[in-house]
Amino acid sequence: MNHCRIGIDLGGTNIAAGLVLNETIIDTLSCLTRAPRRPQEIIADMAQLCHALLEKNRIAREQVLSLGVGIPGTANQQNGHVEDADNLGWQDEPFLTLLAEAVPWPVHFENDANAAALGEYRHSGCRAPSFIMVTLGTGVGGGIILNGRIQPGINGAAGEFGHMVIRRGGRACNCGRHGCLEAYASAPALKKQAAACMKKHSQSLLWEKASPATVDARLVFDVANEGDALALGLVEWYTDHLAEGLANIINLLQPAVMCIGGGVCHAGDTLFVPLEKKIDQMNYARHALKKTRLIRAALGNDAGILGAALLGNE
Amino acid sequence: MNHCRIGIDLGGTNIAAGLVLNETIIDTLSCLTRAPRRPQEIIADMAQLCHALLEKNRIAREQVLSLGVGIPGTANQQNGHVEDADNLGWQDEPFLTLLAEAVPWPVHFENDANAAALGEYRHSGCRAPSFIMVTLGTGVGGGIILNGRIQPGINGAAGEFGHMVIRRGGRACNCGRHGCLEAYASAPALKKQAAACMKKHSQSLLWEKASPATVDARLVFDVANEGDALALGLVEWYTDHLAEGLANIINLLQPAVMCIGGGVCHAGDTLFVPLEKKIDQMNYARHALKKTRLIRAALGNDAGILGAALLGNE
Repeated sequence: MNHCRIGIDLGGTNIAAGLVLNETIIDTLSCLTRAPRRPQEIIADMAQLCHALLEKNRIAREQVLSLGVGIPGTANQQNGHVEDADNLGWQDEPFLTLLAEAVPWPVHFENDANAAALGEYRHSGCRAPSFIMVTLGTGVGGGIILNGRIQPGINGAAGEFGHMVIRRGGRACNCGRHGCLEAYASAPALKKQAAACMKKHSQSLLWEKASPATVDARLVFDVANEGDALALGLVEWYTDHLAEGLANIINLLQPAVMCIGGGVCHAGDTLFVPLEKKIDQMNYARHALKKTRLIRAALGNDAGILGAALLGNE
Repeated sequence: MNHCRIGIDLGGTNIAAGLVLNETIIDTLSCLTRAPRRPQEIIADMAQLCHALLEKNRIAREQVLSLGVGIPGTANQQNGHVEDADNLGWQDEPFLTLLAEAVPWPVHFENDANAAALGEYRHSGCRAPSFIMVTLGTGVGGGIILNGRIQPGINGAAGEFGHMVIRRGGRACNCGRHGCLEAYASAPALKKQAAACMKKHSQSLLWEKASPATVDARLVFDVANEGDALALGLVEWYTDHLAEGLANIINLLQPAVMCIGGGVCHAGDTLFVPLEKKIDQMNYARHALKKTRLIRAALGNDAGILGAALLGNE
C-alpha cells in the first residue's frame, strides 16, 4: 500500500470524507453535519470519519500524507480562520489550528468550490494553463485554476461567478444586487421561470408531469428533449442568460478550458449544444486561432473530496 | 551609463518610443503611424526611432538589453504573429520575426493594454500578487497581472473588461452584443448620455459651456464639480454603471489592487468617491478582512511604453 491522502467535503448537510490514492478516490464515508454546531464538534466527527476510513481500508495512520478540507465559506490562508460560513453558522473560527490539534497529519483547507475546481482540473488531466470551473446548482459558483494552482484572490473569495450582474436592474439576488447571473442560471432560477411560464401556458407536456409547485430544472430539460415547445422556450431563456455570463468570463480571462459542473449539467447536449453556439457568438476573440474549450465536469460531488485531498500537493 | 531597455507603444495614430533606465522612462520620441501600412514599413520607422533615441542620449547599441512593443491587437506568443489589429489593418502578420530582423536586440511584444497594465504595476511598486488595470477611454480595456506577470489568456485576448455585458438587451456595442460595459463606461458613452440629457433639460451649466454636439466626458465632471444638477445626475449614471462592471470583476477575481486609468480617471475624487462607495456595496466579499484596493493610474500614455520596455523582464 502506497501513501494516500484524505479529502473532506464539509457541506451544510453532510460531511463527506474520501481516501485518495494516486489522485483517485478509493473509498468514501460520510455523516450528517447537523449544523449549526461548534467547529470543535464538527472536527471531532471529521477525525472519526478519517479513522474509520483507515480502519476499513486497513491503512496505517503513518501512510496518510495529508488531510484537506473544503469548507462552505471563506478560507483565510494567512491565519487559518474560516471567516464566514453562513451554512455552518461560523464567523471567524480558527479552523485550521483546531483541525491540526485533532489529527496527526499536515492539514489544509480551502473554499469548497475552489477545492472542487482543483479536483475537476486534476481529474481531467488536461494540465491547461488556465482552467475555470463553473458550477450550476442551487447557486452558481466556481473556481479559477491557473498553472495548476487555485486562485483564491486577496481574501479567499474569488470565483463568485454567480454574483456577476448581467442584467442591471433585473431579478433580485440574495447578495443584495439585482440581475446577478445566479438569479437566472441556478437550478432554482430555472424552476422559478418554469413555474411562472406554466401558469401562463396550459398547453405543455410539463403539465402532465408536474405542477408549477413541483416542476424543476431537470424536468424542464427532459421535457424539452421530447420536443415540448414551452420547455424548449425555457431552455432557450436559460441558455441565453447562461451564455451571457459565461461569455463575460471568457472575455475577461480567455481560459484554455471552461468546465461546467453542478446538477444542471446532467442535461447534456440539450444544454451544451445551444450554449456553445451562443457563447461562440458572444466571445470577443471568436476569430482567434485558439479558443476556450468547454468541457463537462466528470466527478459530480466527488470533485470536492478529490480537490480537498490534493490541497498542498498542487 | 548602465544598460537600458526600449519600449514602443504602437498606436493607430502614433508610434511612441521610450528609453527606460531602472524602470523609469528617461526620454521619448514619436512619429505618426500613418496606418494602414505594411508591418515592414512601420517596423522600419520603429527601428529609426530607436536609433534616434540612442543617438540623442549618447547610448551605444550594445547598452540596450531589449526592445518591447505594445500592439493594438492580439499578440500570439506561440508564433510571434499579430493575429488581429484592426486599427493597423493587419491580419495574422509575422510581426516578431520581422522586428527581430530589423533591430539587433532581443524583441518582445504584447497587446498594448496588457503592456500598459504591466507598466502601471511596476511603476506602482506595490508588488501585489494580483493587479487589475482597467482603462476608461475611447474604449474600456485593461490587463491582468498575477504574480508580476501578464495573463494573456489562451489567445492573448484576456482582459477585455469592456466586453462584459452588465445590462442584457441594453445599448448596442461595437462587438455585436448589447449592454456591454463599454457602451456605458467609455468616454464616448458618457458623452452620448450627456448630449441626450442636455436636449431634455435646458437648465444646466453644461449649456453655457457646450452644446450636445461638443459636450464631452471631461466637461461633465468639471461642471458636476461646480454643483450642476444635470451633470451630477450624469456622474451618478456613469458611476452606477461603472461600479456594476468593476464589482463584477472584483467578485470574479478579488484582486489585491484594481488600478483605474484612461482619460476619464482625471476626474479625480468626483469619480472615485462615489465609485468606491458603490463598489463596496456590490462586493460579494464586502465583509472580508481584506478587500481590493482601488488606485489611480499614474503614468497616463507612458504606461504602455514602460510596460513594453519591461516585457521579457517580468
